[in-house]
Amino acid sequence: MIIVLKPSATEEDIAHIVDRVTGVGLSPFVKRGTERTIIGVVGDERLLASVPVSAFSGVETALPILSPYKLVSREFKQEDTVIDVEGVVIGGNRLVVMAGPCSVETSDSLLSVAEHVKAAGARILRGGAFKPRTSPYAFQGLGMEGLEYLSRAKEKTGLPIITEVMDPRDIPTMVKHADILQIGARNMQNFRLLSEVGTCSKPVMLKRGLSATIKEFLLSAEYILAAGNHRVILCERGIRTFETATRNTLDLSAVPVLKSLSHLPVIVDPSHAVGKTALVAPMAKAAVAAGADGLMIEVHENPEEALCDGEQALLPKALTALMSELRQIAHAVGRDL
Amino acid sequence: MIIVLKPSATEEDIAHIVDRVTGVGLSPFVKRGTERTIIGVVGDERLLASVPVSAFSGVETALPILSPYKLVSREFKQEDTVIDVEGVVIGGNRLVVMAGPCSVETSDSLLSVAEHVKAAGARILRGGAFKPRTSPYAFQGLGMEGLEYLSRAKEKTGLPIITEVMDPRDIPTMVKHADILQIGARNMQNFRLLSEVGTCSKPVMLKRGLSATIKEFLLSAEYILAAGNHRVILCERGIRTFETATRNTLDLSAVPVLKSLSHLPVIVDPSHAVGKTALVAPMAKAAVAAGADGLMIEVHENPEEALCDGEQALLPKALTALMSELRQIAHAVGRDL
Amino acid sequence: MIIVLKPSATEEDIAHIVDRVTGVGLSPFVKRGTERTIIGVVGDERLLASVPVSAFSGVETALPILSPYKLVSREFKQEDTVIDVEGVVIGGNRLVVMAGPCSVETSDSLLSVAEHVKAAGARILRGGAFKPRTSPYAFQGLGMEGLEYLSRAKEKTGLPIITEVMDPRDIPTMVKHADILQIGARNMQNFRLLSEVGTCSKPVMLKRGLSATIKEFLLSAEYILAAGNHRVILCERGIRTFETATRNTLDLSAVPVLKSLSHLPVIVDPSHAVGKTALVAPMAKAAVAAGADGLMIEVHENPEEALCDGEQALLPKALTALMSELRQIAHAVGRDL
Amino acid sequence: MIIVLKPSATEEDIAHIVDRVTGVGLSPFVKRGTERTIIGVVGDERLLASVPVSAFSGVETALPILSPYKLVSREFKQEDTVIDVEGVVIGGNRLVVMAGPCSVETSDSLLSVAEHVKAAGARILRGGAFKPRTSPYAFQGLGMEGLEYLSRAKEKTGLPIITEVMDPRDIPTMVKHADILQIGARNMQNFRLLSEVGTCSKPVMLKRGLSATIKEFLLSAEYILAAGNHRVILCERGIRTFETATRNTLDLSAVPVLKSLSHLPVIVDPSHAVGKTALVAPMAKAAVAAGADGLMIEVHENPEEALCDGEQALLPKALTALMSELRQIAHAVGRDL
Repeated sequence: MIIVLKPSATEEDIAHIVDRVTGVGLSPFVKRGTERTIIGVVGDERLLASVPVSAFSGVETALPILSPYKLVSREFKQEDTVIDVEGVVIGGNRLVVMAGPCSVETSDSLLSVAEHVKAAGARILRGGAFKPRTSPYAFQGLGMEGLEYLSRAKEKTGLPIITEVMDPRDIPTMVKHADILQIGARNMQNFRLLSEVGTCSKPVMLKRGLSATIKEFLLSAEYILAAGNHRVILCERGIRTFETATRNTLDLSAVPVLKSLSHLPVIVDPSHAVGKTALVAPMAKAAVAAGADGLMIEVHENPEEALCDGEQALLPKALTALMSELRQIAHAVGRDL
Repeated sequence: MIIVLKPSATEEDIAHIVDRVTGVGLSPFVKRGTERTIIGVVGDERLLASVPVSAFSGVETALPILSPYKLVSREFKQEDTVIDVEGVVIGGNRLVVMAGPCSVETSDSLLSVAEHVKAAGARILRGGAFKPRTSPYAFQGLGMEGLEYLSRAKEKTGLPIITEVMDPRDIPTMVKHADILQIGARNMQNFRLLSEVGTCSKPVMLKRGLSATIKEFLLSAEYILAAGNHRVILCERGIRTFETATRNTLDLSAVPVLKSLSHLPVIVDPSHAVGKTALVAPMAKAAVAAGADGLMIEVHENPEEALCDGEQALLPKALTALMSELRQIAHAVGRDL
Repeated sequence: MIIVLKPSATEEDIAHIVDRVTGVGLSPFVKRGTERTIIGVVGDERLLASVPVSAFSGVETALPILSPYKLVSREFKQEDTVIDVEGVVIGGNRLVVMAGPCSVETSDSLLSVAEHVKAAGARILRGGAFKPRTSPYAFQGLGMEGLEYLSRAKEKTGLPIITEVMDPRDIPTMVKHADILQIGARNMQNFRLLSEVGTCSKPVMLKRGLSATIKEFLLSAEYILAAGNHRVILCERGIRTFETATRNTLDLSAVPVLKSLSHLPVIVDPSHAVGKTALVAPMAKAAVAAGADGLMIEVHENPEEALCDGEQALLPKALTALMSELRQIAHAVGRDL
Repeated sequence: MIIVLKPSATEEDIAHIVDRVTGVGLSPFVKRGTERTIIGVVGDERLLASVPVSAFSGVETALPILSPYKLVSREFKQEDTVIDVEGVVIGGNRLVVMAGPCSVETSDSLLSVAEHVKAAGARILRGGAFKPRTSPYAFQGLGMEGLEYLSRAKEKTGLPIITEVMDPRDIPTMVKHADILQIGARNMQNFRLLSEVGTCSKPVMLKRGLSATIKEFLLSAEYILAAGNHRVILCERGIRTFETATRNTLDLSAVPVLKSLSHLPVIVDPSHAVGKTALVAPMAKAAVAAGADGLMIEVHENPEEALCDGEQALLPKALTALMSELRQIAHAVGRDL
């Protein structure tokens, strides 16, 4: 940490800061410049995490030098994390497509769409049993019944299941049905839920919050790793900006940024980012070109009748067509699909 | 709802839409213009909430006319909601100041600060027992022990307690200690938690999420009212923008907007919005001038030693000084403090 | 336009609005619903552009139905606009890469980089003679001298020139040297400058403003077309968001959105969007996958010595390597490079 | 400046950086920590403004310590800047209200509103002769004729005039009519215009750009001071955020932040920030409570007939009512009105 002092800082201020820094076990050094005096701190500045240095008398700003996360960082672990989900490898050279309906509706419709997306080349089945909805009056998911349907679809198709968990109390049941637990964007900073899935034996896909910086996103992932679960997948799904032409703004530069800062795999969800069917395919292709390790795409056989997010669902045949384009782009960037 | 059709929409498209709208029990009317045909929908358009109208063939956009929330709206209830918390009235002509430390640290320090803020004129004591922290390595609060300290401070000072609830599993214990349950910004769309506090007998203060629109904020409040708890207080605490000079950007125009759309009381938390002690007082004063029903302010006797958010805490004497300015501004806008 | 009335609107309010709408030559119709009365307006609602309908007594909101721009829209002109710049075609099946230094520095260095980017496959040379800089103390460009250097580089390499215009007074000179006039992001709503380049004989590349919605972006393009110059190229170059890991956030979904709303070609500038060399290539590839008609990329032979934006410049050999990847992605999406 | 090196930085990297820093006349020092080596720079780091340090081999980040602006800063000039405009003092203890129509429409209507706002207590008359409009089809102002009307209104009422300048070519005429030149939000980074008004003898009011950080805002003001004109007034008028309930989001915390960083007076324009008449008064009051040196408020005698921004105009009688509340709030914060 570099502590920049105000021009008005006194010798007492300096002595006091040096004292406090030394007190937490770090080594400060003082450098007096022509316009500002600075105090540098050598050592693991995370020890200062709970010290409000910028509130100290004489301090103008305190600039951290190290990233506040550790276990998720490339520095901590240089090689890419590769996660094996029932034989489907995420984070390796071959990309993975997770597809399926926004929410599980009936056992039959789920099975039918599962077979379609499998035929198209998707290797993981998505489907929400518990749905976080902005309005209390919107369809909230089938709950436990939906989990049963997902298990049945897995049995028939062999596709591993990813589904969202919203409440720590549901976890014991969910881990019996899901192969990947998804934490949604709105729960990215539901720290209790993060800690709880951190003690699970199942991999977790963590979606970026609507207004989460990349640093906050990685800190939320750190919660899960710090609790013991190192099988975490990051998912960029659009951030909130002033633009209203799309549901959110897909931040594709987050893909190479996350890949450089962290060893965790990065998936992109273009469906929720754009919110409109016609924009899903171009953004899916762009995500692969940008270096994503995979995609999560909403597919529905009859979007008009979908109980949730029909506006952004692809028809199964559109997924099939998209897959062949994605494969060519994957090859162009040295990957497989 | 007004459904605007594309110039390319066919008669089949129109017939199909009219059919679907009629199917949910609403009355459509078709108006053919020179450049666009529109289909208007008469009746409670919330019936269309789960129908992805904008995904229908021939549809360009679907413009809702009614607000998606109901119980929280001024239209539903014209007079201001006034909430009595152990004799302290929130939402009436007299403003309320909630003050205290970010997190409960020791029983003694809490008691001391409670006596100070009471003497300054604050009428509710705030203090976090469970703390949502961006980093897993930061102090997470004293938990249940903190709740005990809060109860003791209430006993000694008579100040009702507001404290944050983060997990549905904690609620049964929390309602024994807290007079107001606070839902933090990061949990504004933790819908399970919202529904759960909606079944409690205690008032709830709901903080606006960092990137929540006012519409989403009110919909989250609607979750609580829809579950049966009508004693909800709204709290503006800053939104996330591109500006980094302050921790967040305090959106004070939200105060008159919320007061016009909803009957619920509106509190402003300048401390979390600005994140810097020196900016708390001007923003507290501005909030009162803008029409807020009260303030939530962080106070600590020794901000340097605070385990949480010391950068933004006021000293007790600064609160005392601020209160007299606030009182004058309250009078200027026809209120009392 | 759909005018939604407040529940409290009176018959006088309705009569008055109907009167005003009729007064500008449009036909209103009134529809009384159970919760709201609406007044629809048939005809070209742009006639209401200067009428503050939402300020009328009894009005809750006024929802426009038509887009406020016309000449730039797909509805006005269905086929793609294709612009021939000295034999280089922009907006056709073959993509175009514009490359060169951020700012023109010396005649020799410009010529050298021009030869390199030409060899790599770029077909237009970029280089700033007039530089808009955030700080008055930063290098402001060589001005007229820079224009001379650009002309010389064109003479030697045959590459057409694109350079930025900042001031209406410079236009007469600039049109002698530049083949495409660029309007920078910070001048996207410098309406005088837009009108002025609208009377020029040279094509104009208009960059999206940092906080411009797509609607505002197209309205600024409309200024140029309305003044008579229909050869306009749109350029997405990143928008301002809360994220600080990148200089700006590249909004790639703007590419398919703009291509659907407008007939104008769309270029992406990944260099300014991300601001870091290592992120330029992934975003350039993503832009092509998303359907862009071309790219603008900053190249410098010695980024460390660059007088401007060295942090984001590619070395010439990096451009060469990137071009072959871009070509494969172009083929994957049915384009050529 | 503090240069933080990557763990992988070599001794050659360090030597090279030290060399470059020394080369521009600054003194570097190297500090090797356990996790990172840092290179500190002593002296006026603005000398490094054009050196892309973060692009150097081995560099992770380069953290500036000093603010990039100088003349506008409190450090440069500690006492508040007070500007006398024809006898009206801006920046002193007494607040100033600038009021008038968005755009000048007729000589009679301007004169009438001028007399009204003067009677209400406004001391400067605003009115746009040249109007920057998002759409080319909206009313663009009366131009030179509007300036004549403003001069006539000044003659009759004695109120000094503030009006917007959009084009450097108009300045010679404008300085004959205007007492304060206004630079609008959309031109905040029209650097040519800034430099040009920097050579004028008239005070300049600079409005904050829609997505300008406070640092960028102050750098734009620095352009004007650096060109010789030290009579600059800053104006906060709302920033662009994701919220759509208001036209923009008024960032009132910018007021105390600007007052602490700079010696220049700070005015707030609530009308453009909120865009709705009903919200103007609460935000005007909040601005005074937050410490603004004055307000700019749009007033129109018949908002329904206004050629521009009728949605946000106050009636003259509403201004009169507001003034008395503002006066009380001014007194509460130790100011006069």
